Amino acid sequence: MSPERHTIAAGGALIMDLNADLGEGFGRWTLTDDEALLQVVTSANVACGFHAGDPTTMRRVCEQAAERGVRIGAQVSYRDLAGFGRRAMDVPRAELADELLYQIGALEVFARQAGAAGVAYVKPHGALYNRAVRDVAQAGAVVDAVTGFARAFARELPVLGLPGSALLHAAAEAGLPTVAEAFADRAYTPEGTLVPRGEPGAVLHGEDAVVAQAVSIASGGEVVALDGTRVSVAAASLCLHGDTPGAAALAVRVRAALEAAGVAIGAFA
Amino acid sequence: MSPERHTIAAGGALIMDLNADLGEGFGRWTLTDDEALLQVVTSANVACGFHAGDPTTMRRVCEQAAERGVRIGAQVSYRDLAGFGRRAMDVPRAELADELLYQIGALEVFARQAGAAGVAYVKPHGALYNRAVRDVAQAGAVVDAVTGFARAFARELPVLGLPGSALLHAAAEAGLPTVAEAFADRAYTPEGTLVPRGEPGAVLHGEDAVVAQAVSIASGGEVVALDGTRVSVAAASLCLHGDTPGAAALAVRVRAALEAAGVAIGAFA
Amino acid sequence: MSPERHTIAAGGALIMDLNADLGEGFGRWTLTDDEALLQVVTSANVACGFHAGDPTTMRRVCEQAAERGVRIGAQVSYRDLAGFGRRAMDVPRAELADELLYQIGALEVFARQAGAAGVAYVKPHGALYNRAVRDVAQAGAVVDAVTGFARAFARELPVLGLPGSALLHAAAEAGLPTVAEAFADRAYTPEGTLVPRGEPGAVLHGEDAVVAQAVSIASGGEVVALDGTRVSVAAASLCLHGDTPGAAALAVRVRAALEAAGVAIGAFA
Amino acid sequence: MSPERHTIAAGGALIMDLNADLGEGFGRWTLTDDEALLQVVTSANVACGFHAGDPTTMRRVCEQAAERGVRIGAQVSYRDLAGFGRRAMDVPRAELADELLYQIGALEVFARQAGAAGVAYVKPHGALYNRAVRDVAQAGAVVDAVTGFARAFARELPVLGLPGSALLHAAAEAGLPTVAEAFADRAYTPEGTLVPRGEPGAVLHGEDAVVAQAVSIASGGEVVALDGTRVSVAAASLCLHGDTPGAAALAVRVRAALEAAGVAIGAFA
Repeated sequence: MSPERHTIAAGGALIMDLNADLGEGFGRWTLTDDEALLQVVTSANVACGFHAGDPTTMRRVCEQAAERGVRIGAQVSYRDLAGFGRRAMDVPRAELADELLYQIGALEVFARQAGAAGVAYVKPHGALYNRAVRDVAQAGAVVDAVTGFARAFARELPVLGLPGSALLHAAAEAGLPTVAEAFADRAYTPEGTLVPRGEPGAVLHGEDAVVAQAVSIASGGEVVALDGTRVSVAAASLCLHGDTPGAAALAVRVRAALEAAGVAIGAFA
Repeated sequence: MSPERHTIAAGGALIMDLNADLGEGFGRWTLTDDEALLQVVTSANVACGFHAGDPTTMRRVCEQAAERGVRIGAQVSYRDLAGFGRRAMDVPRAELADELLYQIGALEVFARQAGAAGVAYVKPHGALYNRAVRDVAQAGAVVDAVTGFARAFARELPVLGLPGSALLHAAAEAGLPTVAEAFADRAYTPEGTLVPRGEPGAVLHGEDAVVAQAVSIASGGEVVALDGTRVSVAAASLCLHGDTPGAAALAVRVRAALEAAGVAIGAFA
Repeated sequence: MSPERHTIAAGGALIMDLNADLGEGFGRWTLTDDEALLQVVTSANVACGFHAGDPTTMRRVCEQAAERGVRIGAQVSYRDLAGFGRRAMDVPRAELADELLYQIGALEVFARQAGAAGVAYVKPHGALYNRAVRDVAQAGAVVDAVTGFARAFARELPVLGLPGSALLHAAAEAGLPTVAEAFADRAYTPEGTLVPRGEPGAVLHGEDAVVAQAVSIASGGEVVALDGTRVSVAAASLCLHGDTPGAAALAVRVRAALEAAGVAIGAFA
Repeated sequence: MSPERHTIAAGGALIMDLNADLGEGFGRWTLTDDEALLQVVTSANVACGFHAGDPTTMRRVCEQAAERGVRIGAQVSYRDLAGFGRRAMDVPRAELADELLYQIGALEVFARQAGAAGVAYVKPHGALYNRAVRDVAQAGAVVDAVTGFARAFARELPVLGLPGSALLHAAAEAGLPTVAEAFADRAYTPEGTLVPRGEPGAVLHGEDAVVAQAVSIASGGEVVALDGTRVSVAAASLCLHGDTPGAAALAVRVRAALEAAGVAIGAFA
């Protein structure tokens, strides 16, 4: 499967995976509304302790996800609690691979203990996600961690990321399954890439606009770019954000609108 | 197997396991002479990141241990890098169990990636080790972590600890294998317990005394207590310390003396 | 001034200090409603980075406090972000004193930079607060830190704590000013001590009960204990909690009720 | 004083400051031979807890430095214990300034408690040092922290750094004193900049070469560049490294050679 193509179910129906970041609290602090989001998404990106996610939160989110049949993904990050993993770091490839594998291994035991089959995929978080779009060495570190995991557990985990990113290229070259994702609430350029945060209009305002873009991506494989042109955005997963007030309610609306538009919600192949 | 008894090999020969703490550096800092100790011990207690042990060190120690056929154990700890896990903490049982399971899971992936069969046993570190001698709740947390691991990986890990401790009692009650260890360099009371650190004579001075006590434990199952009486100390594993200058050389001497006394060095059953 | 006595203003009016924990977020995570609480309290217990409180939060809370004329206190803690400082730790006295002094020093620069006169008092947080009620060594560590600060800055900081605690005794013996505090939302025993958390009725339910107890303490120096008897509770400061939903609104009500009862709200002497 | 010029004493004698990184242990781990280096250097760059340096180590190094009359500088860093501050981080300017000021404030209290006049200068560590050579925003963050400290304590701290760096430029523009440093053990380009680490010949091999370059810098204000040409390197301070075996002994040799060459060793003006 090419990472660029969205999935079509056996009967011809469109299928879309919904993913969101979960378990992003730490000790006394909470952030994401995990229970509400687990009723919406099909893939849970679980924080693994380096930017967020203490062991007890990891266990609880895994238990809730396993109970609801939501797939558990490792949301791996730089080691940066103070910066929530949002500060890019020049970590050498081998060292970064070890740090990421540590996180995946820690999540694996909680996923299995909860009765799930284990970690089902890997998605980098925050600054690492952004950096792995272009940085070949750090993209390679993510791939090294996933291949290290495969050596350990004889299981190749799909890598979830941005279409066209260095990350998905490196993963594909290493023979790993890749899953392209799109964003319901981010503006796109005419070239089909994301408008960088910080630029005007980078984030869609208004729930209606977010819902409309989600439907457009899932049913038509395209979005209206910031300049008004239509651009193709093929993705097998749609990323919903869960760390702002009202996020869970918006996620519910998006899912309902997708289903109303005839899109089946289901985990990526 | 009772934890109190030392192991006797098929042919009647005595077998003694040698364990030591390894991988106790963190990033730029090193502490234990891992390479030298791996040539002596049969069981490596690998630090898992909470009191020491960064991911790169964990990977490297696992690779070296796997290459030499040394068994890899999870040396789990309180979350306390600044205090090296030597400050007892009132962590509630469920929370502590999650923290320990996180560490075992992280080590599991490095052990397997290195080609080993995975984590082979669990031994608490520092203040947690001492606390689990009497504290039923924290001893229970260690056991909960090991049973959680068993749920996840269908593998029951032996628990390594002090004979007579709450930890080994709780592990045995939970049906887990237990392994009693003795110390070559610590003085014993006439009751067969360790003289508490801080009391006079708690640590044996002089390499000859350490070597003699090791041989006495391994070949005769007894030590000369601080007051001169002979006391029985049955153990299947002998703990060697590796974090002081000259420790690795002393470990070599101990092993050679044991072998000269007819004790076979081998991993516990 | 004895720590047990509440303050009487020059004209004979009662004066009560109101203190609350502030700045207890960390990086991406927020907890306390700092802006709202700073409109109510006269003393802000600012987290210093060991259980909560990143540098940017510390700077901002200090700026807001200085702008409103609210006094800045160092809310010092064990080093335990994962446990929010709520897990008692066996930290040796000298080491603990160093850890606490580090925190006070870090806050001092932000308090001064914001235009305040510097840190105005010290109050231990969480498990350290509870432990310093009876643990003479850890109470001594707090006092050592404050006397170390006095050596550094030629300024003796008052210590805020529980009346009758080892902490206030040690501070008084060291010649430090002490300030006794009472709790509006905690039940008291007939002996005038707090009903331990975890016991039934330990925390007052209902806003009216909290407001009534606050007025009773501030205007009459007494509370109705859990068994219905009246007991004397003299305090110069009243602790309000700010880390639960509705906490800021309740704090506003308490302050208004105190003022309506003729109690002047003002920083302790 | 221009940062590019070395200092000339009243009587016409050359004066050179010697600085080294100290206190770079953390808890159980040690790295720098603080006692030995304090007998050689005139300026101690004390780690402040973010890349190394626990509170107890900070206190002890400050006490030893104060006793010997060695000046105490704040060796500030990214928050990165696992990477020893050697991994560049994209920390926004304001946030970085707060993180650095926190560190300087914490050191100030230990320096004063030890009887010193307080922190005497600021020098960035590791990846921050390198990044501040060209990164105007991060160089600005260091300057912001120092000007914040000046607002707090009415004392302008000199900034120690590489001649020609964005850091020293920004500091000079802000009206702060600047101190240029040179390296005894690093190779220079014909342009007078450092040969980047990782390139062949970047670090001088052989103690004699290091000693000779130190003397050449201190007495003649020049070095022999990697291509053999002579290049001017004016500096008021010479950086000695203390984190490798034999480093302290080499530092002793350098100091002796400088004094034999008629260079007076003394703190920068």
